[in-house]
Order: sequence, then C-alpha cells, then structure tokens
Amino acid sequence: MPDTPATKDTVTTRTINAIRALTIDATQAAGDGHPGMPLGAAPMGYVLYFDAMRHDPSQPRWPNRDRYVQSAGHGSMLQYALLHLTGYDLPMEELKAYRQWGSLTPGHPEHGHTVGVETTTGPLGQGISTAVGMAMAEAHLAARYNRPGLAVVDHRTYVIASDGDLMEGVSGEASSLAGHLGLGKLIVLYDDNQVSIDGGTDVTFTEDVLKRYEAYGWHVQRVADGNDVEAIRRAVRAAEAETARPSLVAVRTVIGYGAPNLAGTPKVHGSPLGAEEAERAKASLGVDWPAFTVPEDVLAHARTAMERGERDRQAWEGTFARYEREYPQEARELRYVFEGGAPDLSGLELPRFEPGGKVATRKASEAALNAVARAMPSLLGGSADLAGSNFTDIAGERPMVPGDLSGRIVRFGVREHAMGAVANGLALHGLAPFVATFLVFSDYLKPALRLAALMRQGVVYVFTHDSIGLGGDGPTHQPVEHLMSLRAVPDLVVLRPADANETAQAWRVAAERRDGPTVLALTRQNVPTLDVPDGAVARGGYVLAEASGGEPRLILVGTGSEVALCLQAREALEGEGVPTRVVSLPSFELFAAQDAAYRESVLPRAVRARVTVEAGATLGWERYAGDLGETIGLDRFGASAPGDVVMRELGFTVEAVVTAAKRSLARL
Amino acid sequence: MPDTPATKDTVTTRTINAIRALTIDATQAAGDGHPGMPLGAAPMGYVLYFDAMRHDPSQPRWPNRDRYVQSAGHGSMLQYALLHLTGYDLPMEELKAYRQWGSLTPGHPEHGHTVGVETTTGPLGQGISTAVGMAMAEAHLAARYNRPGLAVVDHRTYVIASDGDLMEGVSGEASSLAGHLGLGKLIVLYDDNQVSIDGGTDVTFTEDVLKRYEAYGWHVQRVADGNDVEAIRRAVRAAEAETARPSLVAVRTVIGYGAPNLAGTPKVHGSPLGAEEAERAKASLGVDWPAFTVPEDVLAHARTAMERGERDRQAWEGTFARYEREYPQEARELRYVFEGGAPDLSGLELPRFEPGGKVATRKASEAALNAVARAMPSLLGGSADLAGSNFTDIAGERPMVPGDLSGRIVRFGVREHAMGAVANGLALHGLAPFVATFLVFSDYLKPALRLAALMRQGVVYVFTHDSIGLGGDGPTHQPVEHLMSLRAVPDLVVLRPADANETAQAWRVAAERRDGPTVLALTRQNVPTLDVPDGAVARGGYVLAEASGGEPRLILVGTGSEVALCLQAREALEGEGVPTRVVSLPSFELFAAQDAAYRESVLPRAVRARVTVEAGATLGWERYAGDLGETIGLDRFGASAPGDVVMRELGFTVEAVVTAAKRSLARL
Repeated sequence: MPDTPATKDTVTTRTINAIRALTIDATQAAGDGHPGMPLGAAPMGYVLYFDAMRHDPSQPRWPNRDRYVQSAGHGSMLQYALLHLTGYDLPMEELKAYRQWGSLTPGHPEHGHTVGVETTTGPLGQGISTAVGMAMAEAHLAARYNRPGLAVVDHRTYVIASDGDLMEGVSGEASSLAGHLGLGKLIVLYDDNQVSIDGGTDVTFTEDVLKRYEAYGWHVQRVADGNDVEAIRRAVRAAEAETARPSLVAVRTVIGYGAPNLAGTPKVHGSPLGAEEAERAKASLGVDWPAFTVPEDVLAHARTAMERGERDRQAWEGTFARYEREYPQEARELRYVFEGGAPDLSGLELPRFEPGGKVATRKASEAALNAVARAMPSLLGGSADLAGSNFTDIAGERPMVPGDLSGRIVRFGVREHAMGAVANGLALHGLAPFVATFLVFSDYLKPALRLAALMRQGVVYVFTHDSIGLGGDGPTHQPVEHLMSLRAVPDLVVLRPADANETAQAWRVAAERRDGPTVLALTRQNVPTLDVPDGAVARGGYVLAEASGGEPRLILVGTGSEVALCLQAREALEGEGVPTRVVSLPSFELFAAQDAAYRESVLPRAVRARVTVEAGATLGWERYAGDLGETIGLDRFGASAPGDVVMRELGFTVEAVVTAAKRSLARL
Repeated sequence: MPDTPATKDTVTTRTINAIRALTIDATQAAGDGHPGMPLGAAPMGYVLYFDAMRHDPSQPRWPNRDRYVQSAGHGSMLQYALLHLTGYDLPMEELKAYRQWGSLTPGHPEHGHTVGVETTTGPLGQGISTAVGMAMAEAHLAARYNRPGLAVVDHRTYVIASDGDLMEGVSGEASSLAGHLGLGKLIVLYDDNQVSIDGGTDVTFTEDVLKRYEAYGWHVQRVADGNDVEAIRRAVRAAEAETARPSLVAVRTVIGYGAPNLAGTPKVHGSPLGAEEAERAKASLGVDWPAFTVPEDVLAHARTAMERGERDRQAWEGTFARYEREYPQEARELRYVFEGGAPDLSGLELPRFEPGGKVATRKASEAALNAVARAMPSLLGGSADLAGSNFTDIAGERPMVPGDLSGRIVRFGVREHAMGAVANGLALHGLAPFVATFLVFSDYLKPALRLAALMRQGVVYVFTHDSIGLGGDGPTHQPVEHLMSLRAVPDLVVLRPADANETAQAWRVAAERRDGPTVLALTRQNVPTLDVPDGAVARGGYVLAEASGGEPRLILVGTGSEVALCLQAREALEGEGVPTRVVSLPSFELFAAQDAAYRESVLPRAVRARVTVEAGATLGWERYAGDLGETIGLDRFGASAPGDVVMRELGFTVEAVVTAAKRSLARL
C-alpha cells in the first residue's frame, strides 16, 4: 500500500476504484453475481455516500437520515462496498462471503438482513417506487409534525435506478404520482448505461426517458460522463436545490467500466469477469492492492463519513430534544413512527354490530378502519381510485394534495402496483399504511405485496369485492384463484371475515400485526351479522355453531360470505338428524399458528365427514376437508349476473352443501 | 317514430343519441352498470364504427377486418350498442338482458362470448396493451406474408382508452414498446373526460399525457370537443395518415353527457342514472322514441355499415384468392393463422435426450422450442430481457426491429406485464406466442395471464429459474408460492417437467394446446435426464419408478427438480426394505383430466403412505398426500447461496424424504 498521502482528487478516484475492486473480488470469489452495474455506477455511489447524503454509519437507523435506495438491486456489491467503506457494521469477512449461506451479503440487498439497506430490491421497478413511498412519508411527516424552527423531519431520498427499473410499468405509475404530489426531496440517479441483458437498450428501449419524466412533472438533468465526479456532484446539488419537483438525473455510464474486453457489453451484467479479465480490469483501474483489502488513505478518507454523520445526527438530536419538550404529544407519536414496535391500541374501540342484521363486510370495514385510525395516528392510506367502493376514507381526514401532504388519505389513482410499492415505502418509514382495491386486482400489486411479506412490513390490504358475489361486473372482476394464491405467500396473513363482527376483529389483528402484511378480503354484498366471540378471529378458526348434543357427526367449514350458507345448511342437516358443527375459518395462517390442542378442539381428527365451502379455488382446501371430505368451491371463472344469481348458478346453495355432506357421510 | 327523413347531420346526431339511449335503457333495466363512459364517448364510437373502420357485421371474423378494442371495458354498453346498430348478431333482446345470467351482454366485454368483441377488457390497461399485440401481429404478418400488389394483411387497430387505462403501468410499458417498433396502424382515442371514480383526475393524474406519449415516439393530437364529430373524424384521418408511428388522440369528453344533474361528475361512472335523471337525459338529448327501440332512419343509417363491410370484405377475398394461387404455401400458413384450430404438428421432431446425463430443463426447453418453431410457422415470441437466461431464442430467426417486423423473435425489454398483454393480442390475432421470464416474475404479468386463461388463448409461458435451486440471486428471485398460485388459475395448465425428456414432451403439450394457456416451469440448474415413456407428460402424472415387486407400500410424488431427489430417496427406502414407487407429476391439471381408472393406477387409494416433494408452497399438496401423507415443501422465503446449498439447508435432502416417509408409514 502506498504510504505517500494522496491528493484529494486522487483519493476520490482511488476510493471509487476501491469500490470497483471489491466488486470484482466479491463476484470472482462467489463465481456468481453482477459486476457490471457497480463498475459503471461507482462514481454515483461515491457522490451519494461521501458527499450528498446525511447518514451516520454508527447509527444506521437514525430517524432523520437520508434514505438510499438501490433500485438496481442486482448491483448489490456497490451498496455493500459503500457500506463497508463508510464504516457500517459490514466487515470484510462478509464481503468475502458474498452470496454465501448465512452471509450478510446476499445476491440482492435485503432489508432487515443487512445494516443500511433501507428496502429489499432486485425485482426491477420496485426500489424506485418504494422510494416514492419513502419520500411521501417524509413529506407527510414533515407537513404534519414539523413546527416553526423545529424541522424534526427533514431529509432526502436518493435512488440509483437502471434502464430496467425505468422500463417497468410500476416505476411509471409511481413517478407519475411523485410528480403529481411534487415530492421535491426525491432524487433519482438514472444509471444510463445503454445496455440491457438482451443487448443495447436500442433493441427495445428508445423512448425519450427525460421527456417522459418532464411529462410527469419532474425536474430533469443529464450528466454526459458517469466518471465525472464533479459533474455528478453539481447535478445532485441542482436536484437538491429544486424542492418543488422530484428530480431525475440521467448519468451516462459504461457498464463494466474498467474491464478491457467486457466493458460496455451485456456480458458483464450478470457474470463475474473471470480471473484474467478481473486482473486486467484492476490493472487498468490502477488497483495495485491485494484482493479484499482497502488502501489506508482510502479507508481514512472513507471513514470521514462517520464524523460527518455523527455531527449531523447529534445536531438533529438536539433539535428533537427541544421538540420533545415543546410538543410532547407530537413527539410521542413521532417516536412511535421512528421506532416501530407494538402499537398502543389501548384506546381502540372497535365497532360492534347487532347480530341479526345484514351488513357488507366492506362496510363494516369502513367503521373498523375509522376506529383504528382514531386510535393509531400512524395509520394512513387509501385506494386505487375505488375509495367509494372499498370504503376506505377516514372521516374528518383530508387527502394528501400537492402543496399539503399532511392528510392521512392517499388518492393513489388507478395505479395498484405503485400503490403496493408506495405502501412498502410508507411502512419502511415507520408509518402504518393500508391500501385498497378489488380482490381480483390484487394481481396488479402482487410483486410489491410479496416484498412486503419478505421484508415483514405491516401493510394492510383492503381487498373488497371478494368473490363472484359481486355480481354484474362479471368474470374480469370476480376473483377465483386469489384467496388461495395469497394464502400460499409466506409470512402473509389472509383474513376473510364472515360478517361485520369478524371484520372488526380482523382489523384489530391487522392493526396489531406490525411485523408482516395482512390481507382483508371483504364482500361487496350484505351478509348476516353473527354473534362472534371475542378474540375468535385472532385464532384463525373457531366453532361458530356447535352440533346439537355437542357431538358433531359432520363439520362444515366456511369462510367469508359462505359461512352464512354453512349455517343454513346446518339447519337443514340437523333437521335431517345429522349433528352438524359449523367452523368459521377466517385465516388459514392464524389457525395453523394455534397449538395442536386448540386445532383438534375445532377440527377433531375423528370427525372425518366434512364439507368446506368457499367461493374460490378448491385447491388447498383438502388441508381441512381430509380424505373423506368434500370441497365446494369454484374451479372455473365466474359470470356476469346479479350476485345472488351467480352464487346460486355456480353451486353455492343449501342443497349443494347438504348433498356434499351426504356424500362425505356415506364414505364413513 | 318520426317519418320525415332526417338530414345527414341529423341522423348522425340521432344515431349517437340512440347509442346513448340504449346505454341509459340497459343500465336502468339492469339496475347496475356504467353509463358515464358511453354517454361521453358515443361520438368516438360512432366515428370508428360508422366511418373509420373496415368491418363486416355479417362476417365478424373476416381476417382482414380492422380491430376495435374498447380498453375502457366498463363502458361495455357503448360497444354493445354499436354492434347492435351496425348489424352484428346481437339482438335487442340481449341488450335488454344486460348483465343478466346467460346473456350475451356481460358487464364487461368478453371475447368468445359476444360477437365482435376482439378481446376481453375491464381490468384497466389490458385492452390498450393487448391492442399493441394485435397491431404487432398485423405488422408482423404483413411484413412476412404480403407480396407486391398483394397486401393480404393490411388493417388497423383502433382503441378507446380511459384515464384509468393510461394511469396503469402496463399501458406505459406497452406504449413504449409500440413507439419503439413504430406501430403506425395503431390508433388510440383517449376518452379524456377528466373524471375518475375518486373525483376529478386532478386529484391524482396531472401529468402531461400527450407529452409522455410523444416521449414514447407516438404521434399525438388533441380534439377539444368530444361532441364534434367532424373534428374527431379529422383527427382519426390524420392518425391514419401517419404510418410510421402509433397515434394517440386525446378527445375531451364529458362523462355522462346529457344527464342534466350528473354529467361531468364521478357519480355517473358506475351507477345507472335513476329513473328521473334517465328521463331528463333522454329529453335533453332529444330522444323521443321508446326505450329499447331505434328509429327507422337511424337503423337504416346504421345498417349501411353492412354494405360497406361486405364490399370491403369481398375485395379482400378477391385479393386473397389471387394470393392463394400465387403463394400456396404462404397462403396455407396464413389460413392457419386466420382460422386457428389444431396445429399440424406432424412435422414436429422433438429432441430426445440420453438418460444418464444432466441437463437444465431451461436448456432442454431451448431445443424443444426450436423444434416446435420449425414445425409451427405461427410460433413467435421472446423474453422480457432474459433471452440468454430463459433460452428462448430461435436459431436462424431475427428479432423484430423498427422498420422490419418480420422476425419471429420479440425483444420485449424489461416489461413483463406488457409482454403478457401483447402475447394475448398476438394470440387473438391467430399467432402462437410464447413469452419468457423468471418464474418469480410471473407475478408481474399475472393480470394478463389471467385474461389469457379467461379467453382460452394458447399463450405459452416459459418460466425458468423455477425454485430456490437458482441459488445466489436470493429470495427476491426465488419463487415459492408461484407454482401453487398458478395451479389455482382456472383453465391454465401448469407443467413442471422433471428432466429434459419431460420438457420436450411438455413443449408438445403446450404447442398442441391452442385453446388455453400453458406454463412451463423450468430449472436453472442441471437435473439428471430420465427415461420417460412417450406421452407420459400429456397424462399429467405417471409411474416413473415402480416399487420392487410391483406392490408399493409407499409412494413418493415429485415434480421438476425434486423428482431426482425422490428417485434417490426411493433407493434408500428400498434399501431399507420399503417397496417404494416414484410418481412424477408434471401437471396437476392434466392428471386431474385423466379418467379415474388411470389416476387410481398411478396413485392407488389403498397406498396411503405418501410423501410429496416440491420446492414450493405445501398448500395444495394435501390433494395428493392425503390424510396420512407428508408434504415436503417450502413455506418460507428462500435465501442467497449456491443452489445446492439452499436446497440442502432448506430441507430437500434424501434424509428428509426418508424421515418423512417413515413418519407417514408409522401412521398406517
């Protein structure tokens, strides 16, 4: 290692090349990974972590830190190298174990796994769209909580995005929304390297990206040379100075920069350079230090980030201390946002509904949502242009509008996918978001929902119109496979309440569940209100109606609107002398989480005559029907007609349940 | 009805108002539906069906007809009224039965259900994106098959799209691709009514849409008054004159036009007007004829479409007859495209792979796909920027490029959702599309895949990297819930072949299946090549390895890469004296379609000790495991590490299968 002190410029270049060298070393060691992006984008990463961003490596969750989102998640080594160099708790041993079992350096950055990773990225388009949610959270919290002279929420969100990110529709939706809301503290650096996996971007991506972003209402700039650190700096500063609009800076880079034979080609995107090319690349970059080491001057330079970060953080802590004294209630609310953790729902008074009436569960959800919103200041959200159908407005609250983002209602527009990604950003920022659309359109936001589950974020999805019972809109709007598809997602809780009271309880479960997402599947149509024991929904399944004599010969298991049908069928079966129990099973996941004794008490193994009833795919219901049971469901698409007609025509009748019950009984 | 002949202008206005009146009548009768859009957009619909489009109501599937796609599917009454008036086989009785069980007038237009409906719409963004596929099909077929003086494929694709359509990301992706390819015969009328469900579009959609489309490379125009028929006509003609770029015409309309109290408000979007407002609207529109009737002058005017259509069609038939004489081979290929039906695969020679070797099924798929492409000229497709990973290139073929769309390879860019919708358009146009991405990113195109299933279109999805076995890319790229989620979709066939030979057979199934979509889930990693009986895959499941002595005590059921694990576990179990059968189950759906005797022969009810093995969600596997069986799967997210390590660490080992087998045996 050189012992002569380097000039400022030299150390900048050397630091950038140290990032590149670590990328080369880690991908070579793994024999796997994506070196191209970090080699090209290292100067951008440098400018952000070393110059633009306020961040404290020693306190990576300091609330007022700037957020960095690497939307181009495949270039994870860029972020790992930056985190390591600037002093985050990510030792060199972890970089050596890139992409290995148990390491802190997975192939794509994972939030909650690696320090300093603000959101999990990799699926293209998600990072930038989640960043829109983070910037929205910042603007919302600032508008709601800052006080004169006390800007306790005041930071930026920086993104590096790739061609792929900007080709994805979700980023277009989110960027349009960001432009509409004027998220001036969102700054996106576009790694404009003109290369995608299948070749140059000219093979498919020839639109004028900057013009498109101008059309969204963004401030746009171009940097001609991605190695010109000063030009990147200037552009970032200009972007920071523009506070009324989000900023996009297209930076022309060379993918795989430094690799003499591979730079500028698609080959360098997704495979290590190979030993020889790696050697040559290092030589061409002037990297004369051993693999997985960092020259002292570079390290010394890099670690200045810690001092700056500590200073910035301490200044903010002073401000927040003053805020806490002057605005204790607001400070308490903010602390909850900053720290997350279990919400204080002691003040929550859920609505109770009188059994005997009829209420659509989407309507009951509105009342419960409003009760939760009163008890939980961090709750906010809205619908993808279906607020009046999803019943998601909060009484007395205003929507976020350009110029005033303090409202707790978000009008997402017809942008389900961006809504899902934005919700992730809101949740990652400590807020408690809910989002809403029809259940069938959960498909549009599934990639974002999956990330919420993977990151264990407490997003609540209000999915109404949950079956063919919605009627005339027909098969394009009638979910069939969706309930079971969602149940197959790990770490997601799906709740399909049977009535208004189960709905209220379901909202409590969702509100309390801050370590993972929750789906509420709700009816459009009215369903009878039941007498639901306290805490029943939280157990996932329970005995709603016991067999006469308390010894069931048959069990009917239903969810949602089909529970009422099970109750009617029970009457008929009891009338024919069959002691019949009805089990309401609002959540597979919560029921599976109960102890074996409870599950046995609800669904005794010995009672093998069973019928499950749900207006959705039967696949998966064998879990509760068992070998001798029957599954009544829907393995075809729906049809357009009034909801009760569709239900009847497609087999959701008392007669059908009774007939199925007899078939099952006959197998005993 | 008036018996004085109306002037030309008058009859135009009266016809437009007849469309409006039918909309009012049908939604009033149904007590349900969306009157707002047809009331506002009727003049646009009029210009298209009465002036711009070449279509023959008496022969609605005439191959060279112009295509009309109503992307704003909720305004279905606009299309039904136009079809009825211009003489399609959609009688007034059907309009009276709008949204009723069994009628031909469902809430949203359904292809294959209602004559003249080119694609099923309703889920926003899908129609316009599918239309991009139709326009691509037209341009491809024209480039490939037209000969000098014989333009046998030469027509346009017209779309009416709403704010909602243009807010959806999928339309952005598709429009970017359409602009890139220069689809000059695609003309989109944007029903710019400034109202969405949650309020004015100003609450969330303030971007400059025309500028965005210019950035995509489109030709854009604006019409200031949506009731100015001449202005709409002029704009459509200018759009038709522009042949190098797709066209967007923003037409400023008034939602619910004519309804005195509701016009211009969100309320008129999704609910009937109500009796009183309906009455008043008709009065204000000068509709003085009874409900569900059409004045004679209007009908006479409307039915001129039939003469024009017949003339256009006959002219084309003359051209095609000449083409058939001069280019019989090309004409045969085109006829197949025009008529669909079972493909002639007599020339198909699938690759065979020697058992004992190791091949990734994605790699085997490449060979099979190429064999199918040779035998099936209508096959075309590509990947969402992963051609080199999905192995989907066709040897000897070129990609479609701007200016020459004759190539059979499509480079979709990182636009999975548009890829899915475009595939629907290609299929609806008679081509046999395949599309490709990683299995985990099937989420991105699910809404389009669902429509393929609903419309029973023969789209083939090549989804590689089908499990945690893909390794280092980690949980963002490792599918878990996807196989089971896809299996829950009605009318979709999911195939997860175990080896190279099953893969080849799976491709035959997919190629033959022209009446519904097929998913091929393929490995990234190498798997052992097996000895697979002919036709085994088409049956969905089969006995791959029989128990010693032919009398199994235990059955191991696996799919894909886990079949090899089952075979290894069988060795171990047989070694311990347990006669063990291995069943390979590449497709739940195809197996379920076999007769009971065959299914019983593969999975005899009496053999209740079972273990199912699949590196995906266990939910749904109870169908084959039964009450005494065990399901080995993955109910958590994956992890980043080499594929074999992840497989081992997450429980896909011989030991785990043997242990599970013993647990199951112990229950007997």
